[in-house]
Amino acid sequence: MRQKILDRALSVTPLDTAAMEQARSRQQQLTKPAGSLGRLEDIAIQMAGISGQPLPDIKHKAVIVMAADHGVAREGVSAYPAEVTPQMVHNFLRGGAAINVLARAAGARVIVVDIGVAAELAHPDLISRKVTPGTASFSLGPAMTEAQMLEAVQVGIDVFDEQLKQGVDLVATGDMGIGNTTASSAITSVLLQEPVARVTGRGTGINDEQLAHKIQVIEKAIARNAPDPGDPLDVLMKVGGLEIAGLVGVIIAAASRRVPVVIDGFISGAAALVACELNPQIGAYLFAGHVSVEQGHRLILAKLGLSPLLDLQLRLGEGTGAVLATSIIEAALRAHREMATFAEAGVSTKEEE
Amino acid sequence: MRQKILDRALSVTPLDTAAMEQARSRQQQLTKPAGSLGRLEDIAIQMAGISGQPLPDIKHKAVIVMAADHGVAREGVSAYPAEVTPQMVHNFLRGGAAINVLARAAGARVIVVDIGVAAELAHPDLISRKVTPGTASFSLGPAMTEAQMLEAVQVGIDVFDEQLKQGVDLVATGDMGIGNTTASSAITSVLLQEPVARVTGRGTGINDEQLAHKIQVIEKAIARNAPDPGDPLDVLMKVGGLEIAGLVGVIIAAASRRVPVVIDGFISGAAALVACELNPQIGAYLFAGHVSVEQGHRLILAKLGLSPLLDLQLRLGEGTGAVLATSIIEAALRAHREMATFAEAGVSTKEEE
Repeated sequence: MRQKILDRALSVTPLDTAAMEQARSRQQQLTKPAGSLGRLEDIAIQMAGISGQPLPDIKHKAVIVMAADHGVAREGVSAYPAEVTPQMVHNFLRGGAAINVLARAAGARVIVVDIGVAAELAHPDLISRKVTPGTASFSLGPAMTEAQMLEAVQVGIDVFDEQLKQGVDLVATGDMGIGNTTASSAITSVLLQEPVARVTGRGTGINDEQLAHKIQVIEKAIARNAPDPGDPLDVLMKVGGLEIAGLVGVIIAAASRRVPVVIDGFISGAAALVACELNPQIGAYLFAGHVSVEQGHRLILAKLGLSPLLDLQLRLGEGTGAVLATSIIEAALRAHREMATFAEAGVSTKEEE
Repeated sequence: MRQKILDRALSVTPLDTAAMEQARSRQQQLTKPAGSLGRLEDIAIQMAGISGQPLPDIKHKAVIVMAADHGVAREGVSAYPAEVTPQMVHNFLRGGAAINVLARAAGARVIVVDIGVAAELAHPDLISRKVTPGTASFSLGPAMTEAQMLEAVQVGIDVFDEQLKQGVDLVATGDMGIGNTTASSAITSVLLQEPVARVTGRGTGINDEQLAHKIQVIEKAIARNAPDPGDPLDVLMKVGGLEIAGLVGVIIAAASRRVPVVIDGFISGAAALVACELNPQIGAYLFAGHVSVEQGHRLILAKLGLSPLLDLQLRLGEGTGAVLATSIIEAALRAHREMATFAEAGVSTKEEE
């Protein structure tokens, strides 16, 4: 299974430069000073390169929310008890969470996946692909076995492929899992080779003392498990999480099918980091929906060369920032498709210098 | 007319703190860690204070685009010839400009006002309230007479009041006028008492030499006209523009009727600065849609204590950044209204420390 996943990741190819050139040329002809729509122009051009269409369009979009529990949550690293993970999954399925509301506003479908929640969950709208009921605590040993980690990545690939069959032109990533900023900080510290304290924040809202403890737990876990910074799947297995692994799969699968991925905050960012370490070409298929309050997220975005579309001080996860940002991406594409050209509108162009 | 305008500006009252307190309390009960929706929470609370409703809603929104010409455009301060102003007004009326496309995407109606275009314009959808066909060049004397300036502000008030009759819960400001970054830089320099060079940018795209010339034109105009920094309407009259004066009227009128105003870029920012100098209470009714590439805009926002919702490197005007940002404001209100509370969803709250 490892080879199958690596093959899928390595099948991601560069953007379509011919389509990008056509899109860039069109942007120059639209009735506005060249460059005056700023990042909206860049978005349209990147989307042309991703889709291979000079006039890209988004008809269907989905946010895939991967939910799982973390053994390390027993170490007192979160402000919330672990039972909040299944409670919030129920909330997603009833449509009452922030991600449901924002997805309704954006016209995106919400796909909820139980990839490792430590509770029995059943609901007609829930995709049940539980690999194991929560990871082991990585303060005692690896979070997952290699088989579990690979299965979780494959779940992400399968879930995306199923969405693609139903039609999806853009996918946003989301997460739910008490303890998952702890795992994301561990992954980020190892892959960016940054001190734990520099990439660890307050998650759902811990105090100074709890933050110091969280940093210590992560430092000890990295020392004990010795994840290999040169092997992103080893890092994912030893100090990651099931929902993070699932999102790695979603990202790989979408990029390999030329579907853009809007990544959310720190947890999605850690997944994107793992995916891009497997194949740096994947980065071209990503949009950073926003920059989270979690301090490690900014470092991940810098490493991936991504500039966030929004900076609204969010730190909720669930895919909220990613889904909010889809309205900007769609607006960019509408301007690209629907604006009149100088010739169509009879508007004078810039005076020759 | 001066007194009538000042009275309207001074009729703006503080936000409704009781409604804000109810909104703040609801935010604490929604199924998310407290504060995790960041600025979306602040937006919902501010909107409660503006509207006086603990659960504010936006049913109707409009972007008011004021168009006018500038005598100073004859001084070679813009990359585009002045005839682009009426050409772009036609483009707005045919629905081909960026503001039309983005307003369609946002579900906002576009109100186009000829408040001083230097061309004959007629169209069933155009609001024709031409005060005069373009300002005088402020390099030769005041841009407007006092009567023209006051009439232009009153046009803005009248246009808003008419929109309010038709139903409007949020208004965005937009502008069109070749040469209007020059006027905005002049206003900003005087009211913020900043050197002209610090608040002057490249507008639609001038080169280094043209920028140096633009700065010199503004410096000379300020020296010649000696606008009084303590009298914002004097500044508006001497170095402003008709569309800027119109937007001052829109902002005053909306705030006085407890309707939120989303300001766009530098030109709208200059209008907001004038309005807030007349009555600082007005600032509480404003949202900064985005921060423009024009360097003076950031200084205006800092002075007004506004933090932009978007930073997408826009420099188009027309209301584009403001209308884009309405999707964020609406998402904030939907989350506020539609999310489940902890009690409704049966989700555990934060563990006691």
